[in-house]
Amino acid sequence: MKISVAQLNYHIGNFARNKDLICNAIGKAKSEKADLVIFSELCIPGYPPLDLLDRSDFIEKCSQTVDEIAKECTGITAIVGSPTINKNREGKKLYNSALVISEGRIIFSVNKALLPTYDIFDEYRYFEPGKSFSVFPFNGLKLAITICEDLWDEQPFDNESGKKYLYTVSPMDALARQHPDIIINISASPFSYSKTEIKANIFKGKARKHKIPVITVNQTGANTELIFDGASMILSGNGEIWKRLPFFEESIFSFSLDDILSGANTSGDIKKEPVELIHKALVTGIRDYFTKTNLKNCIIGLSGGIDSALCLSLAVEALGHENVRALLMPSRYSSKHSVTDAEALAKTLNIKYDIISIEKPFGAFEEVLAPLFREKETDVTEENIQARIRAVLLMAVSNKYGCILLNTSNKSEAAVGYGTLYGDMAGGLSVIGDVYKTDIYRLANYINRDKLIIPQNTMLKLPSAELRPNQYDTDSLPDYKILDSILYQYIELQKPAERITGEGIDSKTVAKVIRLINYYEYKRYQAPPVLRISSKSFGDGRRMPLVARY
Amino acid sequence: MKISVAQLNYHIGNFARNKDLICNAIGKAKSEKADLVIFSELCIPGYPPLDLLDRSDFIEKCSQTVDEIAKECTGITAIVGSPTINKNREGKKLYNSALVISEGRIIFSVNKALLPTYDIFDEYRYFEPGKSFSVFPFNGLKLAITICEDLWDEQPFDNESGKKYLYTVSPMDALARQHPDIIINISASPFSYSKTEIKANIFKGKARKHKIPVITVNQTGANTELIFDGASMILSGNGEIWKRLPFFEESIFSFSLDDILSGANTSGDIKKEPVELIHKALVTGIRDYFTKTNLKNCIIGLSGGIDSALCLSLAVEALGHENVRALLMPSRYSSKHSVTDAEALAKTLNIKYDIISIEKPFGAFEEVLAPLFREKETDVTEENIQARIRAVLLMAVSNKYGCILLNTSNKSEAAVGYGTLYGDMAGGLSVIGDVYKTDIYRLANYINRDKLIIPQNTMLKLPSAELRPNQYDTDSLPDYKILDSILYQYIELQKPAERITGEGIDSKTVAKVIRLINYYEYKRYQAPPVLRISSKSFGDGRRMPLVARY
Repeated sequence: MKISVAQLNYHIGNFARNKDLICNAIGKAKSEKADLVIFSELCIPGYPPLDLLDRSDFIEKCSQTVDEIAKECTGITAIVGSPTINKNREGKKLYNSALVISEGRIIFSVNKALLPTYDIFDEYRYFEPGKSFSVFPFNGLKLAITICEDLWDEQPFDNESGKKYLYTVSPMDALARQHPDIIINISASPFSYSKTEIKANIFKGKARKHKIPVITVNQTGANTELIFDGASMILSGNGEIWKRLPFFEESIFSFSLDDILSGANTSGDIKKEPVELIHKALVTGIRDYFTKTNLKNCIIGLSGGIDSALCLSLAVEALGHENVRALLMPSRYSSKHSVTDAEALAKTLNIKYDIISIEKPFGAFEEVLAPLFREKETDVTEENIQARIRAVLLMAVSNKYGCILLNTSNKSEAAVGYGTLYGDMAGGLSVIGDVYKTDIYRLANYINRDKLIIPQNTMLKLPSAELRPNQYDTDSLPDYKILDSILYQYIELQKPAERITGEGIDSKTVAKVIRLINYYEYKRYQAPPVLRISSKSFGDGRRMPLVARY
Repeated sequence: MKISVAQLNYHIGNFARNKDLICNAIGKAKSEKADLVIFSELCIPGYPPLDLLDRSDFIEKCSQTVDEIAKECTGITAIVGSPTINKNREGKKLYNSALVISEGRIIFSVNKALLPTYDIFDEYRYFEPGKSFSVFPFNGLKLAITICEDLWDEQPFDNESGKKYLYTVSPMDALARQHPDIIINISASPFSYSKTEIKANIFKGKARKHKIPVITVNQTGANTELIFDGASMILSGNGEIWKRLPFFEESIFSFSLDDILSGANTSGDIKKEPVELIHKALVTGIRDYFTKTNLKNCIIGLSGGIDSALCLSLAVEALGHENVRALLMPSRYSSKHSVTDAEALAKTLNIKYDIISIEKPFGAFEEVLAPLFREKETDVTEENIQARIRAVLLMAVSNKYGCILLNTSNKSEAAVGYGTLYGDMAGGLSVIGDVYKTDIYRLANYINRDKLIIPQNTMLKLPSAELRPNQYDTDSLPDYKILDSILYQYIELQKPAERITGEGIDSKTVAKVIRLINYYEYKRYQAPPVLRISSKSFGDGRRMPLVARY
């Protein structure tokens, strides 16, 4: 038997495009004489469709698209993911289904039983869990078709809120009683640099436990915050990765099932360093945000610092230098090298840039506000005004030239509220909002791996917002190495304060940092969507009350 | 038997305050010789605690607080709501529990079985559903203790995504087999003007079906977007409301169960017009946002239009005139009456206000941007610059004087993207972001019910953003009556385009409006939290993908 795995980049709600992608892959699979072609979870509407699933017209469109694709399945069988209607009187309106289609018809269906409802997942918001488990008999074999989380009944966890057995059923144990020959797992599993290994181990464990091959099909490409890494796996019955499809790329791969069973021709796993994967994830995240919203051009405020330098490098890689422009906006507090470092980078990357001093607008604001501020000291207000003037300028160019402002705030800043709302927190998409400052340097070094792109001076200078004379981040924040360690333990690992430890970390600093994180929740509420690369990013995956006192 | 119902205003994560509130109510109940005092759902941590529930230290604090309160329960029994730990190997880590406490101990517990996971609710994110159902024997009676949604196994729906039987179990049917004498329902049920009647009917239906009294205890007060209306009900076994506690106020009410059974001394239901409830909800929403974040003062940009006039009136009612200030920021495009109308209102409400012309900063921006915009026509860019200058000024005063900017955008504008990001969309809290423009007039009339507060001129003038000469909202938008009808049918009722109908509504306008709603999702992503008064508000209750094409 020949099987094709189709790892594709779907667009939410763009049924025409998704249908074309799927039909082309069916055509390719046919030409390679495959008997079965497998697509990923909810490939028909694209994942995650969120509350579009609440719309009856949207569900109708899914059903129509499945019917149209089924007609293309002549001489081949396909497995596609789509929401289907729960026809029982009771329970949620929909199922998250894997549909087996052939010769114009749906010939078998499986409803996802384990519905992830944590972090960025909200599947129980829409779907009724499947409750019956049957293998699908195909070409003399029995296929155990599962949908993503269905194989995650046992999961390891790296944080204190996780639980090994989150569910009270094990779909695969139920299916195993029917003696399947292979396990198929269709998924829409977003990237997180700490989960690559965990994910592979889950599948290895299932292959070993049931002593049969596992074929996983993940989607690739980004939908706003969520970046899907593809990296679909084919595992042999001894739990080895027999073939891994590429990370963050579309790929259609056909193979003979006999080859897995015999262990022949294995190309095995692909090993990648986290920094390489994060880099590719961010480039994919930027690129897909633009292509899927039908936009081409971006603008970035370039300060001469490392954050905006990194974002600019990533944007140029994602969109091409001709589609990226920058604005340099020095003030009286900017160091001399700020402009020269920024210019050097803009020239290296061959992008259009303009320099606008913010002094005149700043002076105008000072003047009109003077009557109100007469008896008041200079404070953070004046720093914020500068940051907001820069946002006004960036947004003006954005509006006039139709280019999207990319936000350059990092995760460390966002965590402790070190940023100005409607100022440097502005932008359509936050590129590095899930990257801690210490990892910013790792990524910048990776960018510079072959040749110097980000200037040495930018890499080496002390981080500064340059909003008042001789201001450095460390004036009000702990050293980034200490800060990031506390943040990681509190946010990702969800440790209580008293168990946050490490070199240079004391309980007073921990308490201060946690207070800042909680206090500045209101700023993050209005932040742009953040490209997610960790297991706990700011945004939809972390929902904190604003008026809490804790 | 004497029962006390405690309808209180909890603060999320403020365990000391919640404990004090509860202990004081226990004291009052004792002094009124009650045998049982009932508190609302998750009263220990406050509702909704969101992802604070993921923190083990937070859960530990809940447990400690319950123990401390239990010690106060001498000679009286209390029912409190708290998360508890699921000690089974499998399933989510927590239960959403009702704990019966007495003489220092937990003597009975019920775990919520129906976990609402739709709209603003995410309970399956945290909780394992309860699966066993037992009545609690107390003073010779059998109490069927249920938690909020547990009584909502059958629910009416006003939208196309709703489903009458959302669950596959009915906790009350299971409990009914044990012949309870009364039903107790503890809840944290947020206000929505269209749900007041529906809620009462659910409880009336259960009382009638089981022919026993129903006692409901809801929380009151607001936690950011969600405003809880209290309005706890005591219903007799024939389904009549025997007593309704006040809307949006704390209240402790003690009564003899014999009186309900005999139908004596009923004060019955309280009838309120929707506009009165919405008004009270918004005032409560503002007030609690400030008190719970420990803030006192607000600032509002006053344009002379009806939206900011309404917000100012509500803010003065919520915070007191001495804690509210306004900024009037005319431009070359402001009509003369804009300033005079705004001043008239500020004087009527006796608030501090300042006038700052935006001309100088506007001129400065025009000047510094001129080299970049040389060959470009004037367009929406210049309108946005004006709106953003106003935000810079408002935020400057906000920063300097520590007053929170209240956002004055309405739901109609937010829906169709008629607003400037980082401009008039700025603010810490959106006061009327869930109020359609046509309802803005209803509320303004309600404000003016006894005496003229909002000037006639403000009420009568044509809506305009005043960002270019002779600009009116209807230049680019349909008449608000038509627009709001389309929006309501699309957003609240979730109708497909082809079923959106009404006077003056044609399919071309419907298509245009829907396109705008979907296109401007990215603006709303960065909007402030919105006080929720409808069944479908922008914010956490409506989660739409940004990169969708649909």
